[in-house]
Amino acid sequence: MNENIIFRAIGIIHTPFTGAEKMPIQPAAAKGVEGTVDIKPEFEIGLKDLDGFSHIILLYHLHLSRGFSLEVVPFLDDKLRGVFATRAPRRPNPIGLSTVRLLAIESNRLRIQNIDVVDGTPLLDIKPYVPEFDDQRADKIGWLSDKIERMREIRSDNRFN
Amino acid sequence: MNENIIFRAIGIIHTPFTGAEKMPIQPAAAKGVEGTVDIKPEFEIGLKDLDGFSHIILLYHLHLSRGFSLEVVPFLDDKLRGVFATRAPRRPNPIGLSTVRLLAIESNRLRIQNIDVVDGTPLLDIKPYVPEFDDQRADKIGWLSDKIERMREIRSDNRFN
Repeated sequence: MNENIIFRAIGIIHTPFTGAEKMPIQPAAAKGVEGTVDIKPEFEIGLKDLDGFSHIILLYHLHLSRGFSLEVVPFLDDKLRGVFATRAPRRPNPIGLSTVRLLAIESNRLRIQNIDVVDGTPLLDIKPYVPEFDDQRADKIGWLSDKIERMREIRSDNRFN
Repeated sequence: MNENIIFRAIGIIHTPFTGAEKMPIQPAAAKGVEGTVDIKPEFEIGLKDLDGFSHIILLYHLHLSRGFSLEVVPFLDDKLRGVFATRAPRRPNPIGLSTVRLLAIESNRLRIQNIDVVDGTPLLDIKPYVPEFDDQRADKIGWLSDKIERMREIRSDNRFN
């Protein structure tokens, strides 16, 4: 279980966010922000049928993260939290997850909305978003309970640069 | 963008499913199935505060997948679909995603419910499940629209072995 697991980008996510500063920290706070995903031409055929879905899950490499911390002070908080209880980018395996609206597919280019990543982010995978698979009746959201309302207002600062 | 992206397992997922056959294909079809996640001791501190969440997102390496197909016949269908429009395991980057209920954390062991992966699956990341981040009002679920009802009944066969 110590062996290397090797992936390669299948494409690149383009957004208006050229740096981590002032970036929205979650898609819900990036409402309306449009971006594109350029899939490598050799994977284009794998996009067939995806245009039937209104939302897609993007998994990507948080490529600006250097190293990791097991405890972090998340954007919405002022206390040290275990990194796995947060969505902070400096994780042991820096994989990011965002569910975005799919506007259109033009050959190997996806036009998406509500995207919250930095321009140039390497894409690892796309999955169709299916509420029957992905939605849960969460009855506890831990330390976020009393903070979630502030989310829409908060933008990232540069603490993870 | 052709460089290798290297990850390592942070732990191992244990389930009652010792092979891909007869395995539920999504957590919604694995209701009640309990499993454990053994996190490597060196990452245990990163679990702090996670016990406040009722549900967590597991990202894992679909380690039994060999190679990939850009078009697949998914379990719920009988037509070839683009792999990115499915949750099939033989993907260019075989990363799996499941949202499960968190029952308890005992030191570096998580007890979880509604788990749909094969025993011994290498874990890549844990994220707290937060409806405000993760739930979307999907108005289209493509080819799955008329098939989703069958999901609970279907179990995987061995077509991806």
